[in-house]
Amino acid sequence: MPTYKAPLDDVMFLLGDVFHIDRYGNLPGFAEATPDVVAEVLGAVGKFCSDVLTPLNRVGNTEGCRRLDDGGVTTPPGFKDAYRKLVAGGWIGAAAPVEFGGQGLPTAIAQTIREFLCSANLSFAMYPELALGASAAIFAHGTAEQKALYLPKLIDGQWAGTMNLTEPHCGTDLGQLRTRAAPQADGSSRITGTKIFISAGEHDLAENIVHLVLARIEGAPAGTKGVSLFIVPKFLAGPDGALGARNAVSCGSIETKMGIHGNATCVMNYDGATGSLMGEENRGLQAMFTMMNEARLGVGVQGLALSEVAYQNAAAYAKERLAGRAMGGAKFPDKAADPIIVHPDVRRMLMTMRAFNEAARALVLWTALKNDVAHRSGDADERQAADDHMGLLTPVIKGVLTDQGFANAVLAQQVFGGHGYIAEHGMEQFVRDARIAMIYEGANGIQALDLVGRKLPKDGGRALQAFVGAVAGHIEEPGGNAALAPYIAPLDLALGELQQATAWLAQNAPGNPEDAGAGATDYMHLFGLVALGYMWCRIAEAAQQKSAMGGNGTAERMNQKLVCGRFFMERMLPASSAHLARIKAGAASTMALPIDAF
Amino acid sequence: MPTYKAPLDDVMFLLGDVFHIDRYGNLPGFAEATPDVVAEVLGAVGKFCSDVLTPLNRVGNTEGCRRLDDGGVTTPPGFKDAYRKLVAGGWIGAAAPVEFGGQGLPTAIAQTIREFLCSANLSFAMYPELALGASAAIFAHGTAEQKALYLPKLIDGQWAGTMNLTEPHCGTDLGQLRTRAAPQADGSSRITGTKIFISAGEHDLAENIVHLVLARIEGAPAGTKGVSLFIVPKFLAGPDGALGARNAVSCGSIETKMGIHGNATCVMNYDGATGSLMGEENRGLQAMFTMMNEARLGVGVQGLALSEVAYQNAAAYAKERLAGRAMGGAKFPDKAADPIIVHPDVRRMLMTMRAFNEAARALVLWTALKNDVAHRSGDADERQAADDHMGLLTPVIKGVLTDQGFANAVLAQQVFGGHGYIAEHGMEQFVRDARIAMIYEGANGIQALDLVGRKLPKDGGRALQAFVGAVAGHIEEPGGNAALAPYIAPLDLALGELQQATAWLAQNAPGNPEDAGAGATDYMHLFGLVALGYMWCRIAEAAQQKSAMGGNGTAERMNQKLVCGRFFMERMLPASSAHLARIKAGAASTMALPIDAF
Repeated sequence: MPTYKAPLDDVMFLLGDVFHIDRYGNLPGFAEATPDVVAEVLGAVGKFCSDVLTPLNRVGNTEGCRRLDDGGVTTPPGFKDAYRKLVAGGWIGAAAPVEFGGQGLPTAIAQTIREFLCSANLSFAMYPELALGASAAIFAHGTAEQKALYLPKLIDGQWAGTMNLTEPHCGTDLGQLRTRAAPQADGSSRITGTKIFISAGEHDLAENIVHLVLARIEGAPAGTKGVSLFIVPKFLAGPDGALGARNAVSCGSIETKMGIHGNATCVMNYDGATGSLMGEENRGLQAMFTMMNEARLGVGVQGLALSEVAYQNAAAYAKERLAGRAMGGAKFPDKAADPIIVHPDVRRMLMTMRAFNEAARALVLWTALKNDVAHRSGDADERQAADDHMGLLTPVIKGVLTDQGFANAVLAQQVFGGHGYIAEHGMEQFVRDARIAMIYEGANGIQALDLVGRKLPKDGGRALQAFVGAVAGHIEEPGGNAALAPYIAPLDLALGELQQATAWLAQNAPGNPEDAGAGATDYMHLFGLVALGYMWCRIAEAAQQKSAMGGNGTAERMNQKLVCGRFFMERMLPASSAHLARIKAGAASTMALPIDAF
Repeated sequence: MPTYKAPLDDVMFLLGDVFHIDRYGNLPGFAEATPDVVAEVLGAVGKFCSDVLTPLNRVGNTEGCRRLDDGGVTTPPGFKDAYRKLVAGGWIGAAAPVEFGGQGLPTAIAQTIREFLCSANLSFAMYPELALGASAAIFAHGTAEQKALYLPKLIDGQWAGTMNLTEPHCGTDLGQLRTRAAPQADGSSRITGTKIFISAGEHDLAENIVHLVLARIEGAPAGTKGVSLFIVPKFLAGPDGALGARNAVSCGSIETKMGIHGNATCVMNYDGATGSLMGEENRGLQAMFTMMNEARLGVGVQGLALSEVAYQNAAAYAKERLAGRAMGGAKFPDKAADPIIVHPDVRRMLMTMRAFNEAARALVLWTALKNDVAHRSGDADERQAADDHMGLLTPVIKGVLTDQGFANAVLAQQVFGGHGYIAEHGMEQFVRDARIAMIYEGANGIQALDLVGRKLPKDGGRALQAFVGAVAGHIEEPGGNAALAPYIAPLDLALGELQQATAWLAQNAPGNPEDAGAGATDYMHLFGLVALGYMWCRIAEAAQQKSAMGGNGTAERMNQKLVCGRFFMERMLPASSAHLARIKAGAASTMALPIDAF
């Protein structure tokens, strides 16, 4: 049975030593986030994850969710009790606005909580995560009344939330959606249609569920320009939040799917359900995207989270399972064989996961800090620069962290050999659960197109220029010391390749947009390698400084980071050149076959 | 529900136009394998796969195998009837020796049959596959009596077979095994112990199951040098094959596992079961490896098979599912949206699968022809060269085809978006089923070590020299024409990288064996890229020639191959340089951390 220990030390090191969270003290909420407070909150969440959520992960997989005859859905045994504990901890709203009952802590803390929860039990973690997504959209687009009614209950976990976009015939291409909204005399609308793949669509954890639903108001234009967003609660509620009548929305069935069995993926039927418009008429997609960007970052964190827990269990198994002898001679001659961690190919797999995990966590926290600057800073230029960063990095974090997170879950399973394929050790569940993150909230190909087609050209390429400038600035930093050269030099090469790729796209895509489409996924991964490589340079610099300062075991711990960073530079970053070569090949051979040749 | 159409045209093109099977007419069995006979046999198998086995694949996944209270195991509904049809077709023994009831056809035909069966229903295909593995070992190492008793019934499918290697505490490191054999006065042995992960260990398809079991004879040396191989039938049989008493071997349980639910993966308990020694005492591992090499090639074919069927279904979905519009403007303005196959990123996924499938199939068939030369040629030098090829290519085919086969099943699932994650379309089953092939018959890391540690240095590197010589000879072929340069030039580069990698290992590994271990997986994949690239050059050359000869639709079909080959060269082969860079990084950063740092 898998175990999990929250990587608290790494988070504290990243926040304190690499990103100097103390320098953000001028932002609201940061002064309260002293190292002691952060360590206490994260320590408590970590303990909850290890003790309560981790054992329930297997239960969720085995028992799944059940739809009752009356359309109600029961979550796996133990989920309700765990959810009560989560709510009691006040952790759902860690970074939510204080005015609506949140703790107002930095987003970095919320992302870390999210990582821990998802490592321990992705299916469970999705319930509060979707509620937070809904609350983010209501916060951004709701009326004062909508905010007052829904936010406090979503943020404290009393109510849950969902996103309803996909229909049987359309997911990515929401312009095709058919769910319709009929305006009523009282200002509400009647919503009718079928939504599918609705995560946490129905369950027994919260007393109410707030569905955000995309629908087309009668008479609205066809396509994406006629889509509006509605709030459709499971139970109608008075302005005081008292629950009223059951609304005409129900779970038609639960999908049978590859993984995340503990989360109810529902077909939701809207049969003239009462909804209230949120934001402007026909601008529903824009409003939904506010929510999507937050959600996409969260899904990227899921990739990291699965990679982390898979790594931890693979490392433990590799230290315990005996097979063969070390190449240089027995390391444990008193045992029947050496533990498999002595074998370089096993190490390769473990190091690949770890070198990814620590840099990916850095990228998430760095971006979370930018998120707070974007929303909390008093300086408009700072806000804009941070918002640029968020827009640019969101598809990269979603796409790269989930692709690599899945790949790492597969690697971790491979460390177990045949024991990884059977259910007993739980490794195959990590693989099945991690797989969804590459698909939902916009399949990763869509993330790549968002990056290349929208985020790169936006504002004349301002966001990319700032990112490249930050990386290049770090590379050229005066006073850079020789010990960091093994990190800086490979990053410099990879950054050059990213710039070449960008220039190639800028030159070719205007004349042949398919060149951009055919290279998008490779560009996203090349970008991700540079971003992760940059994180390793920042980590290495901080580790070197901290190591010099001494302290109990510090030098050893910091040396581990320096080794992992070197592994990344030598063993993972070199994939960059293959991505560049593929991009520069253009779309010709990709697109040459006629459709009927497939 | 997935469909499957056997790629008969591609096989006929490869056998006829690329590898000129008619030139092998001097080998026993080849004269009978006229194009008409081959097309008829493969056509019949293909039809059986499409009509019978494909619909049963979902049933196998859903229903699984059941262990009865008496230890018997029932296969999923429909499997017994399908198995009867398979036996009636005479297809199990297509390439088996005529003297034991086989058809004696070329191995390439048997490998093709295997590919078709595995595409349609991997769980089902494993039952006859394991019987063939057992028969190969008995053919190579059995006594005349053992052959006479077991081979005809294994080859015609009346009896089934298994391989029993793994025990709870050891799989790869079989020197640790504990199952013991007590010699009896009558020459038989009593086998006692527990074996796990035994595919097709118990079932209801055949009237008897012939278990090949590794065990240690009492008093034998510890480690690998004390392991012997025994034949342990489920029912003891007289010399005439008449079934006698039930032997003391039984299925203790069926594993709950990630995929291949239609195949019973059993814990097998041997409680003083009667077995007969096969081959020499204490040389059981060597005998088992005869079987393992055949089996490993077969598992490589499974990777191709899953990739092929996943590709076919992804292509069909991509032509049908409507979302968005082509970048250059609507391709199907009369529809609500264009089919997603118009999008370059979807094409990228489809082309990646297809460019792999056709080259991998070529590699399998080329190697299958070498297999027949190795076993059937009258020329000792030819036999040795072919055997060298087999030894060298076996780990590459097993490791690379299953890694990429799984990756392609994941890509195919991705084409379906959210619909790929739910069970309904069957794509997630392909992913779960394909995953096992990277693990069993020696996890892929073991394949890489076999390649780098054993096959490269063997006989002074003779096998590698011959392989590199064949590729280099093709590159330098006089009369090479300019139209083939886009294929030849990238292969030349990649071959150079493989040679650099080989030279680097030759120089560094003797002093630091961990350098070889740390680079093994990358070396295997670099080798695989060169081998597949070489296949594409051979295919391109044949396609160009055939295209010039004309014929109904020939030019279009051949042009498709030329396009796929170009895609491989431009988009897949460039990964070679990253592999080389990783290999040359050596083991330092991989091995630097102390064990307790994990």
